[in-house]
Amino acid sequence: MTNQILRGRKHLIALNPNDLPTKWLNMRAVLPEKLPPVLDPDDDKHGRVEIMRRIRPQAMIQQDETNDEWIDIPEEVLEKFVEIGRPTPLMRAVELERYLDTPAKIYIKREDLLPSHSFKLNTAVAQAYYAKKENAEGLITETGAGQWGVSLSYACNMFDLKTIVFWVKVSVNQKPLRRAFSEMLGATVYPSPSTMTKAGREILDKNPDHYGSLGTAIGEAISFSMEHDSYKYASGSNLSHVLLHQSIIGLETKMQLELAGEQPDILVGCCGGGSNLGGLIAPWVRTKSERPDTIRLFAAESEAAPRLSRGRYMYDHSDPVGLTPQVLSYTLGMDYMPPPVHVGGLRQHNGSPIIGMLKHKDLLESRPYTQEEIFEAGRLFIQLYRIIPAPETCHAIKATIDLALEAKRNNEKKTIVMCFSGNGLLDLSGYSEILNKSK
Amino acid sequence: MTNQILRGRKHLIALNPNDLPTKWLNMRAVLPEKLPPVLDPDDDKHGRVEIMRRIRPQAMIQQDETNDEWIDIPEEVLEKFVEIGRPTPLMRAVELERYLDTPAKIYIKREDLLPSHSFKLNTAVAQAYYAKKENAEGLITETGAGQWGVSLSYACNMFDLKTIVFWVKVSVNQKPLRRAFSEMLGATVYPSPSTMTKAGREILDKNPDHYGSLGTAIGEAISFSMEHDSYKYASGSNLSHVLLHQSIIGLETKMQLELAGEQPDILVGCCGGGSNLGGLIAPWVRTKSERPDTIRLFAAESEAAPRLSRGRYMYDHSDPVGLTPQVLSYTLGMDYMPPPVHVGGLRQHNGSPIIGMLKHKDLLESRPYTQEEIFEAGRLFIQLYRIIPAPETCHAIKATIDLALEAKRNNEKKTIVMCFSGNGLLDLSGYSEILNKSK
Repeated sequence: MTNQILRGRKHLIALNPNDLPTKWLNMRAVLPEKLPPVLDPDDDKHGRVEIMRRIRPQAMIQQDETNDEWIDIPEEVLEKFVEIGRPTPLMRAVELERYLDTPAKIYIKREDLLPSHSFKLNTAVAQAYYAKKENAEGLITETGAGQWGVSLSYACNMFDLKTIVFWVKVSVNQKPLRRAFSEMLGATVYPSPSTMTKAGREILDKNPDHYGSLGTAIGEAISFSMEHDSYKYASGSNLSHVLLHQSIIGLETKMQLELAGEQPDILVGCCGGGSNLGGLIAPWVRTKSERPDTIRLFAAESEAAPRLSRGRYMYDHSDPVGLTPQVLSYTLGMDYMPPPVHVGGLRQHNGSPIIGMLKHKDLLESRPYTQEEIFEAGRLFIQLYRIIPAPETCHAIKATIDLALEAKRNNEKKTIVMCFSGNGLLDLSGYSEILNKSK
Repeated sequence: MTNQILRGRKHLIALNPNDLPTKWLNMRAVLPEKLPPVLDPDDDKHGRVEIMRRIRPQAMIQQDETNDEWIDIPEEVLEKFVEIGRPTPLMRAVELERYLDTPAKIYIKREDLLPSHSFKLNTAVAQAYYAKKENAEGLITETGAGQWGVSLSYACNMFDLKTIVFWVKVSVNQKPLRRAFSEMLGATVYPSPSTMTKAGREILDKNPDHYGSLGTAIGEAISFSMEHDSYKYASGSNLSHVLLHQSIIGLETKMQLELAGEQPDILVGCCGGGSNLGGLIAPWVRTKSERPDTIRLFAAESEAAPRLSRGRYMYDHSDPVGLTPQVLSYTLGMDYMPPPVHVGGLRQHNGSPIIGMLKHKDLLESRPYTQEEIFEAGRLFIQLYRIIPAPETCHAIKATIDLALEAKRNNEKKTIVMCFSGNGLLDLSGYSEILNKSK
């Protein structure tokens, strides 16, 4: 019975808990230029930057501003990482390569295996740890489709913290299972607009049937945080500290590729706020910056919000109503409304300034995809692997397929590495809706 | 950094693929008496036993009848077992022990980690393998809540077989995500009653709005199988071959307990058809039979269908309309209707004859639980572990809690081992419904 340990698992490159990286990599330190500061808009009377300083855990503020290249991961966070299944495996997608008949090798980093079903848990665990350390009673956040809400509820449960989630009302009704999961984990969920905040009550006074938006939810989460000092405010994307925490994805991937004897030619991630893509590419940003021809970095966007591909590089708020400070990144404008029919995620009008700078410096490629083509790619993946990609992840799969076919046309043995950001079991109705419509 | 390999995972007893048992254990060979045969009812004109012989894979018929104690697991099935994550871990539930403040040790066998989300995949893989080997084009089955339908679709995808699922119409509408998962895996789903069979058309002629039952679905699956010789018929519970395949659960558990230096005092499983319980207890049945005082076997039933606790031991059909042969087991009668409000699973009127004999010989205890108490137990489990038990699994958790509290009252250091049969992510609406109602 030789070699049986490989039986059925031969395409998985696993690391054991001893191999976990013990430091995060700070992309701010490896960018080609210093990242411009976040700013209050000219007409600001509220001091948005100052409000954020007050309502976030202090460690997050420090991590947002430091230019140190390496930040120690606290031992207790490492323990929780192991508990949630880190290091996650890297999978060689041989079946997909064969199906595409491409000379390219495809590697997939399996963040979908985390128990909250997405990579969001990496930063949720870190933020919950710091909030606990700063003696917070709990964390407050907003969520739309809910992967972030579930992940934060999960992490807060691990650290015995309370969770308060302002959840866009129309989304919470579409995702009752994600809401129930959060609540069973102990979270308090307020469909937003709610009667819990002045902002929410004003909206409801005008229109009791208001179905909410990410703007109303962010607004309520921020005001509720300002009124409840024992709680801290948490965000799941865009910010430097979030990308810092997600660098664990790339650091593990780098070790796994070295074990496999591979050098990546192309790194691919879907891109909304930019944190899973940022986390994946972090260890290669300096190389890209110094020797641009040795590697390609690729952002798969949604046609519903193609900010990197068709937006402008300028200062803008990261939320749709201007409650947060302004950052320099690619934006479609704060009042950009993605097509209402779109179910495929990645609908933000702007995103991470780190990702924005990479694009601005021509170090990052991007391409937008339609929901029809991404769900087709997702269906192919399910039929080959019986693993359900989240709609966001389907964008990265579609890009990977296109890049592997490009390698085939050019007869090039490229090594493509993709971040599989989340599981889509609870999003299967989106697949059915779009794929049945396009029949 | 000593002992880091245990960091965060110290309560998991893992086996590696090399340790997989290579033979199934046949409970028919270790029962205290020979199992009585399946029979046609006296008035039978159709030859139900003969029909089953015709429409099932021949290997299933042979496995249903053999009294050999050990059956080789084909190498290709072992490979697929590794691919789906076998051996599954055994988890020491230290947090639950502490919460209950019990001297009992609690071990949990994690079948929920299989990628179709339940233990049903173990027999689905085996049946798909044999069907493929017998050159079938595909497998036909019926399903209610859909865990079996998903598992069979998953296994058929692995072996490149087609799947046809007759899915109780009212259930398929309540579980759109399970249906979508099956379809994405390549299955064809017919909400039953359908127009695909004569039986279905007759029902629809009388009542076009008929919402179906397990009876209509079984009827359609059997008639469709009879009309399509290139397909074979598959069942997910009750039968000897199904329990045989599930013995992998107990065989792995036994190895894991030996690694932990433990002897089980009580084995617990939820019990509907009886196959996860049967699979868990298989390696201890002979011991129980020969030295009854050394171990307790415990079936957690639903109050909605307490067949072992309150049924009669007699010959009956296993399906609600009498299309299958009769078996000797505990039954509530073919026309027993479980309360319609019940969402907690385990609703069969009878079950496995092997389990029935164990109960009849006083080798198996059973207790029924209400949906309110099982979902409360499930919520406690989620809050302690962030793992969502399927409603069926919640019955086993409730029983385990009660047995651990009994050990506490008696100040006895019992070792309790429970089968965690499935994940309940898609069943969270049941939790919300029942727990919010009972507030």
